[in-house]
Amino acid sequence: MQEHVDIGRGRVARRVYGLDQVDIVPSRRTRSSHDVDTTWRIDAYTFDIPLMSHPTDALVTPEFAIDFGQQGGLPVINGEGLWGRAADLDKALGEVLAAAEQEGDLRVADDCAANAVLQRLHSQPLDLDLLQERLQQVRDSGVRFGVRVSPQNAREYAPALIKAGIDLLVVQGTLISAEHVYRGGEPLNLKEFIGSLDVPVIAGGVVDYTTAMHLMRTGAAGVIVGAGTTTNSTSLGIDIPMATSIADAAAARRDYLDETGGRYVHVIADSHLTTSGDIAKSIACGADAVCLGTPLAAAQSAGTPGYFWPSAAAHPKAPRGMVEAVRPRQLLPLEQLLFGPTPNPYGEENLVGGLRRSMAKCGYTDLKNFQKVDLVVREG
Amino acid sequence: MQEHVDIGRGRVARRVYGLDQVDIVPSRRTRSSHDVDTTWRIDAYTFDIPLMSHPTDALVTPEFAIDFGQQGGLPVINGEGLWGRAADLDKALGEVLAAAEQEGDLRVADDCAANAVLQRLHSQPLDLDLLQERLQQVRDSGVRFGVRVSPQNAREYAPALIKAGIDLLVVQGTLISAEHVYRGGEPLNLKEFIGSLDVPVIAGGVVDYTTAMHLMRTGAAGVIVGAGTTTNSTSLGIDIPMATSIADAAAARRDYLDETGGRYVHVIADSHLTTSGDIAKSIACGADAVCLGTPLAAAQSAGTPGYFWPSAAAHPKAPRGMVEAVRPRQLLPLEQLLFGPTPNPYGEENLVGGLRRSMAKCGYTDLKNFQKVDLVVREG
Amino acid sequence: MQEHVDIGRGRVARRVYGLDQVDIVPSRRTRSSHDVDTTWRIDAYTFDIPLMSHPTDALVTPEFAIDFGQQGGLPVINGEGLWGRAADLDKALGEVLAAAEQEGDLRVADDCAANAVLQRLHSQPLDLDLLQERLQQVRDSGVRFGVRVSPQNAREYAPALIKAGIDLLVVQGTLISAEHVYRGGEPLNLKEFIGSLDVPVIAGGVVDYTTAMHLMRTGAAGVIVGAGTTTNSTSLGIDIPMATSIADAAAARRDYLDETGGRYVHVIADSHLTTSGDIAKSIACGADAVCLGTPLAAAQSAGTPGYFWPSAAAHPKAPRGMVEAVRPRQLLPLEQLLFGPTPNPYGEENLVGGLRRSMAKCGYTDLKNFQKVDLVVREG
Amino acid sequence: MQEHVDIGRGRVARRVYGLDQVDIVPSRRTRSSHDVDTTWRIDAYTFDIPLMSHPTDALVTPEFAIDFGQQGGLPVINGEGLWGRAADLDKALGEVLAAAEQEGDLRVADDCAANAVLQRLHSQPLDLDLLQERLQQVRDSGVRFGVRVSPQNAREYAPALIKAGIDLLVVQGTLISAEHVYRGGEPLNLKEFIGSLDVPVIAGGVVDYTTAMHLMRTGAAGVIVGAGTTTNSTSLGIDIPMATSIADAAAARRDYLDETGGRYVHVIADSHLTTSGDIAKSIACGADAVCLGTPLAAAQSAGTPGYFWPSAAAHPKAPRGMVEAVRPRQLLPLEQLLFGPTPNPYGEENLVGGLRRSMAKCGYTDLKNFQKVDLVVREG
Repeated sequence: MQEHVDIGRGRVARRVYGLDQVDIVPSRRTRSSHDVDTTWRIDAYTFDIPLMSHPTDALVTPEFAIDFGQQGGLPVINGEGLWGRAADLDKALGEVLAAAEQEGDLRVADDCAANAVLQRLHSQPLDLDLLQERLQQVRDSGVRFGVRVSPQNAREYAPALIKAGIDLLVVQGTLISAEHVYRGGEPLNLKEFIGSLDVPVIAGGVVDYTTAMHLMRTGAAGVIVGAGTTTNSTSLGIDIPMATSIADAAAARRDYLDETGGRYVHVIADSHLTTSGDIAKSIACGADAVCLGTPLAAAQSAGTPGYFWPSAAAHPKAPRGMVEAVRPRQLLPLEQLLFGPTPNPYGEENLVGGLRRSMAKCGYTDLKNFQKVDLVVREG
Repeated sequence: MQEHVDIGRGRVARRVYGLDQVDIVPSRRTRSSHDVDTTWRIDAYTFDIPLMSHPTDALVTPEFAIDFGQQGGLPVINGEGLWGRAADLDKALGEVLAAAEQEGDLRVADDCAANAVLQRLHSQPLDLDLLQERLQQVRDSGVRFGVRVSPQNAREYAPALIKAGIDLLVVQGTLISAEHVYRGGEPLNLKEFIGSLDVPVIAGGVVDYTTAMHLMRTGAAGVIVGAGTTTNSTSLGIDIPMATSIADAAAARRDYLDETGGRYVHVIADSHLTTSGDIAKSIACGADAVCLGTPLAAAQSAGTPGYFWPSAAAHPKAPRGMVEAVRPRQLLPLEQLLFGPTPNPYGEENLVGGLRRSMAKCGYTDLKNFQKVDLVVREG
Repeated sequence: MQEHVDIGRGRVARRVYGLDQVDIVPSRRTRSSHDVDTTWRIDAYTFDIPLMSHPTDALVTPEFAIDFGQQGGLPVINGEGLWGRAADLDKALGEVLAAAEQEGDLRVADDCAANAVLQRLHSQPLDLDLLQERLQQVRDSGVRFGVRVSPQNAREYAPALIKAGIDLLVVQGTLISAEHVYRGGEPLNLKEFIGSLDVPVIAGGVVDYTTAMHLMRTGAAGVIVGAGTTTNSTSLGIDIPMATSIADAAAARRDYLDETGGRYVHVIADSHLTTSGDIAKSIACGADAVCLGTPLAAAQSAGTPGYFWPSAAAHPKAPRGMVEAVRPRQLLPLEQLLFGPTPNPYGEENLVGGLRRSMAKCGYTDLKNFQKVDLVVREG
Repeated sequence: MQEHVDIGRGRVARRVYGLDQVDIVPSRRTRSSHDVDTTWRIDAYTFDIPLMSHPTDALVTPEFAIDFGQQGGLPVINGEGLWGRAADLDKALGEVLAAAEQEGDLRVADDCAANAVLQRLHSQPLDLDLLQERLQQVRDSGVRFGVRVSPQNAREYAPALIKAGIDLLVVQGTLISAEHVYRGGEPLNLKEFIGSLDVPVIAGGVVDYTTAMHLMRTGAAGVIVGAGTTTNSTSLGIDIPMATSIADAAAARRDYLDETGGRYVHVIADSHLTTSGDIAKSIACGADAVCLGTPLAAAQSAGTPGYFWPSAAAHPKAPRGMVEAVRPRQLLPLEQLLFGPTPNPYGEENLVGGLRRSMAKCGYTDLKNFQKVDLVVREG
């Protein structure tokens, strides 16, 4: 039973819960973490770890993409980011980094200089040739990868990207729907659009059951849950806590599976998750995989090591998300960040190791069954 | 169903909710934010944006009033503030600013020097001629504007203000009722008073259904919900959270509409709202418009740029509210503060853009329908 | 209906609420605060304001006692404090103050030097002659006053105190019961003890219905609710939030009134209340009066101006409560602290003015009826 | 009735509660704290105080073990810690201390240097002869003591330890189960293992009813509730709050008592408890004894005075727990830390005195009955 309360006379709101309120209960025989299998299979692809990188230049340079793919994850490149806009990618990232470092001593909100630099860099036109050239570099490495486009530009850029040999197309805005309507123009109908493509599509973000269900019906292979940022709450008044959003999307997955007699659409959580504990909780709430952002900024191969921003931070008029200092204790090789060893007990490092250990402590050896683990919830 | 709990044996309290606990759920087809209409119509007037300025000299100088009106909002001047008391308005505001800046390094509560300066400046008698002269300046610009008086002085000052050509009279105390009683004097009966005036009246603040209903029955065109300050909680033990207060007042609006067979009284939220997210949530909870304070202190044309105080901060014996540093990342032209662009992702700038985007993400194109959007509530 | 939850299998706990979660709702015609009557009548005495001073040398020197009494409150002297132990009271208080000021830059918990000074000063024997001499000074002023003794020493010291002409005896420990049992000794039976005295007794603190009811049955004129300190939570694991404690004690008062056919025992709240809002909420929850501590430390006539400790802070082995810096914005004459005017909007000054205004905004003109005002409760 | 909520459609989570939300209610006749008996009897042993030391080298050097045992508690040595790895134990502890002190000015999470030193020191092989030699030193003192081994190494190390004359074997991991399974190996079956030993075993930690019940069925004399660390939440997503965990384990104890017709298995709480209030609350929730960590770091005889780490902090790849500065106001003789006197009112010192006083205020004179004291719970 969902719980609803009257916030005022005749105005009802549904009770929702965040990952920070939820915990996993180990109540079965423990297993060895060596026996845990974290394989993630989506469409025709198999990944060793259930992790996608958030499509931001803060993380995903060509080097990072190859590195992350070789470690077993799904790297996603921001197709509308700097890869196709900056002739000198390192120089452009360096400018963001310099502006961000100058904000160092101040409260982040006091200065948006780095966001302004991002906006300036993104005002450059997108050079599809340059983008294709850089994608080729990743393709040459042999790793599977995806490219993110915004819903607005999906129709325009998709053909060139598919020609560049991408494995997955990611259609991602902070919050999208299956059909985007605007006066005096043709609505974007994702179902028609996805049906016209040759590559599998992951689409999102969504935060509720209905929109998740609609996105599943478009033929998407995966649906992203969460806005990938935390500033929607203050800028839009929209911020459904992730425990509820993930569980609702998992319910849509179940209902859609029944409705179609067998089509399984993956639920991928993306909302400023910061620790291996968050990864484990996301899967326990029903996610099939996790889109990771801030924790990967501790990788030596990240675009701006130690700093993160979600792709929506570069919006020209109304950014959602910030260039923020992640302040890892030190920068690490990506392999060590994912698999350890580490002296850090906070789940900020050894990210996959933490997930494996969580599953093992609870007696589960695969991700799908771990979605059934017992949960508890704390108040507020 | 409203929820009540026993706080102790036989002592019942009603559960109430704050805007910080509430969020908006997007669950329909998304729209373009260009298709959103934010028009606010009250009485005979039409405003492009559903925003009223809190009647404080911290914001509303003659220049600000004209600027805010030209941007589409309803500027409200504090009729009992410094416009009619300080021969040199700039100098007076400069004195407050200087005292406030000296408090800069300390916890705000440690020093009330700026409040004391306000009290001193307000101890000057009100010169109605001076006030009328300054109001004429705003009137000459052609913008619609309102003037705020306290319930105590409404009867005395209203005639002169109406003669000065104001468009709306705002009768505002932190907390008022339809009838103010005092021993050995004639009670102020707002119904009689409003009935005797030629201009529409907005009255408040109120925080509950009953008082809102009583105020609606006085003939007011609009009712202000909220005390416009947050210090009532510690000074009076009174501080009903806004999600509940707004929803209750909206219920009173609905019931009064039914009772009268069609009179629609506007609900205007005023309680230290700080972001575009707060504006969107207020309307989603049932408000027709929002009275904005602190965020407007980032306007270059504000009375004391970067600092805010509610009108009640100047009370001679028991102020409610404080001269406080708002600390915007930078001062902006009012137009940019309201409509962007901005690199700031926190909803502190591009205030109307944030509202439009929130509505568009939820698939709504007008304010009235946006009051029906789904809500969720988080615990404590 | 009281609410109970299972914190674990078969282990039930009752839901309780703090004053910080509770607020008062104004829903009637507003009144003028000039029409409010704050008279408090207990036993044969009438006080203009419903305030008792916490019995601590941090506040109550002979000067303060007279001052507080003349302002209309009930000063209570700590009969087991320094009045009867320190030949030079000012010097002793100066030693505490000096130790407390040295702690200034550190987290209070880092250093308990001032508490240690208190313990040393309290290790001096109690000189009843000296105490009586100082009490005489208060008595000469003509104000009504009480003296506090601990339950352990009540039998020993009461005769001398009554001989000194005190108006009320206050038997106060952090947590007491009607009967204190110890092996191999005679239990202290408060009913017998109180029955043997010629002066009315106020006893406490208690935090629950049952103990409050038992104390009422001892013949006490008033019962103190709350432990007068906040460190019981970490030292003893005992800390019932005050909204519930006060409401429960008020229920005991009601039931005892019925049981006796008319004996009305006063409920006095004492638990680190810090603002006029707390005073108003305490009465709204059911208290007849409030025992005030920290806010009075801003009085120029306080024992250690700017610093406060509850009487239990001097316990030789296990103090409850701390010498703490209250950090008022400035020291004030007691009259101004109680009645204003003030530029401070936080309810830290104009303490009685805040209460009067709260009552007036809610449409109440006497304390007894204000106990019926509507309440709301916020989560966590 | 346990309460469950839908965190999302069809995904249920159980409501759980932390010790910080729970408080004890005194509602009986008060007693003298001198009449309180804190004796803890487990298996054939009797301890004057219901305290076990967390098995960490941060606390338990040979000197500390003897000191703690002589004060009446049960010292537990970390059998897989530095006693058997460092030829010069003082030097090794000094290295950890030096690294920890260098972290002093930084946020603890920014630097894990001390944890890294621990990992290096633990990479030394365990020298059973050295361990036995040091255990002999404790044995010679005549105090009762236990030694902790991990579940993984229990079978290997137990014989040598038992030969060394230990009184209790403690099989402790952060989270364990009665049977640990791993592919291609023989599972560790605690029931068989414990059945084969000549000394009583305490095993844990567990956080839920089912696992507690299974551990009780292994023949353990005591079950540890809690993970002994707080970083499981962020690293594993696992962190059941202790009020619920303890009450659930106490329910298992009750059910197992019934199932066996009389075997009573002790419940011992171990989860970063920091004050005497926490000790009292743990017992009130159902614990028979408490395993204490951080507060004992204020003892002069502790391994690294002023610093604490749980035994799991030394894990080579994925530590749970941190070398952390406890920052006591000053270092104290263990006797004074346990029994006072103290000027510190926060329950950080006089740990047993606080428990005794809590019981006495509630009218209880023995631990078993104190488990029935009334509880209240606050939201969030």
